[in-house]
Order: sequence, then C-alpha cells, then structure tokens
Amino acid sequence: MNRHDALKLVKPHLAEERYAHTERVTDTAIRLAKIYDESEQAVMLAAVFHDYAKYRDQKEMRKIIADSDLPNDLLAYHHELWHGPVASLLISKEFGIDNPDIISAIRWHTTGTINMQPIDKIIYLADYIEPGRDFPGLDQVRQFSTNNLDYACFLAVRNSICFLLNKERLIYPDTLFMYNDLNQKLGDHKNG
Amino acid sequence: MNRHDALKLVKPHLAEERYAHTERVTDTAIRLAKIYDESEQAVMLAAVFHDYAKYRDQKEMRKIIADSDLPNDLLAYHHELWHGPVASLLISKEFGIDNPDIISAIRWHTTGTINMQPIDKIIYLADYIEPGRDFPGLDQVRQFSTNNLDYACFLAVRNSICFLLNKERLIYPDTLFMYNDLNQKLGDHKNG
Repeated sequence: MNRHDALKLVKPHLAEERYAHTERVTDTAIRLAKIYDESEQAVMLAAVFHDYAKYRDQKEMRKIIADSDLPNDLLAYHHELWHGPVASLLISKEFGIDNPDIISAIRWHTTGTINMQPIDKIIYLADYIEPGRDFPGLDQVRQFSTNNLDYACFLAVRNSICFLLNKERLIYPDTLFMYNDLNQKLGDHKNG
Repeated sequence: MNRHDALKLVKPHLAEERYAHTERVTDTAIRLAKIYDESEQAVMLAAVFHDYAKYRDQKEMRKIIADSDLPNDLLAYHHELWHGPVASLLISKEFGIDNPDIISAIRWHTTGTINMQPIDKIIYLADYIEPGRDFPGLDQVRQFSTNNLDYACFLAVRNSICFLLNKERLIYPDTLFMYNDLNQKLGDHKNG
C-alpha cells in the first residue's frame, strides 16, 4: 500500500486538523527512518494509521478492548490511551496489515512500553516532535532526535510523565516502564 | 518497649544527624497518630526504627534481600531503597518486633506502595515533613498533613517522582503505584 492509498483510507476517520497532524507525523517518521536505517514502508504505514481510531466512540473502544486479548487494565485509565491499542487491532482486521512492527508501533505510540523496538521509538518520537507540536522542552527533544533515538525518546517520555503529574492525572505503568528501561539502557550516557 | 528504650537500641546504628532526624520523625508521627486516631505505640516504634538499617553495608543489604522473600527486583534499583525493606526484616529478627503494621510501615517508608494503610501513610508522611526537611512544595504538604492524610501523601509522592525525574533517576514501580492508587481514591477531591 502506498502513502497516497493509505492516507485515503484514514482521511474519512479523522478531523481536518488530526489529518494534517497525521501527514506531519508521516513526514517526520520517514525522515527518522532514513536517519536510523529502518524500513520506510513500515514506518510510513505505522505513521499514517497511528491515529486511525482516534475518533472512535468510547463505548465501541471499550467493547473492542474488553473482547480482545489486550490487557483490560487499560479501561481503568484515560480513554485517550485506548485509540492506539484499538487501532492496532483494527488495521489488521479491516486492511489486512499484519506486519508486527507496524502493529506494535501503533499499539504503543501513546503509552510507550518496555523494550521498544526502533520502529516503535520512531513513531513515538515522530508523534511527539512533528512540526505542529509546541511543548516545553520540545527543542531539546528535536535536537537529539537526529542523533540519539534513545535519548530523545527518554526526554520525551520524561516530559510526558512530568506533564501528567502536574495535571494530577493517572500514569499508565508501561509509560514508567519505558522511562526506567531507557534510563537503564542509556546508563551514564544520558546527556546524549 | 517505650520510646526511650527503643531509641537506645537504634542510636549506635545511626550518625548523629540521622538520629536527630529519627527523633523528629517520631515526634511528627506521634502528632499525626493523635490526629488520625491510630495507635501511638505502633507509630512510635515504626518511626524510631524506620531508618535502623540506613548505614548497613550495601553488600550485607544485598545479601539480606537476595536471601529473603523480598522481591529481588529491588536490587536493580538505587541502594537508597534497600534500607526500609531490610530494616523490616531485622527488627523482627533482632528485637522480636512482629506487629505487621510496624513492619509494613518500615518496609514501605521510602518507596511507598499500593493500598497503604494509615500507619504506613503516617510514617511515609512524617519522614517527608519532619521539621528538618526543606523541599520545594513542602509547605503545602505540611498544610494538608493535619486534615487530609491521603492528599498530603499524594502530594508528597508526586513531588518525589518529579524530583527523581529531574535527576534522571530510576523510579521504583511501587512509587508510581502509590501515586496512581491515591489519585484514584481521591478522585475529584484532589484539591484537599
């Protein structure tokens, strides 16, 4: 499936601004795939479909999760965390996309998780740094995104946890596990 | 065992400043026990012995944890997290203290955990707010400590996680579980 055909499939499911975000994430993710020598085709498809389920009805997403092998504890957390795991199921069912790298990257793009693979990290990071974003600390993450994928992801997930703590929101355990995992892997090389 | 005898047992194991901290934690914890109608005797003993293992040799603590039923994952985290669990074993073995409320409060006083009981929270909080402490945000925690034990603990653990994130340190999963647990229990009443 090429980019044009993939985008045509997601467009009817996204609001205009979300579709523009998807295009920017796709551009950013392909740029990172080139830098880190990962499959541009897999990265492109993961990026195009990452928010495919963003506007699904909450009740429908709740049922999809409850009826699936996804961990049911997701349902105790903010519904914003559901669209990635739900999309990871739907793209296989509806479009026959069964590349496990694509499915994994879509599944974990919001929460992160332990032991993320390069394409998981590329989608996580592209979603965080795409040019439409504007968070405190983003310049630093963008700067490291081109030469240290792990450290850029580490900074992004650290910022995300800080943001959630300040808002007094729940933090999904996999998000902490991503932070600790990258922290341990980076060891003393955390200044990039 | 009265306070005088208990303090006499811990004194030889603590540096002077740490002993003074222990006395301040004990005063603070007893004050909280009165407010929240918990056993002053149990709270006093938990406070006096909470840092009993603070200066144990790291190698000795590592061996005690490895040979015990304590989760071995502790050893992958900062040794600062070991003295509470280690003390929770030693006080039973060395002084015959077997009240599970005291053992639990000492065990979790640094990391926190899910589903903390009132005496666990009193020791956690007393250790955080005793008059010798000076952290950003401490005034707010002290303010709520006298009328909302859960919210005061929630603010304390939130501050602690922020501190560790800023220092790029690992975060023990139970610390996040304490934060999420209190967050859910407090629901919409998080402004105290």
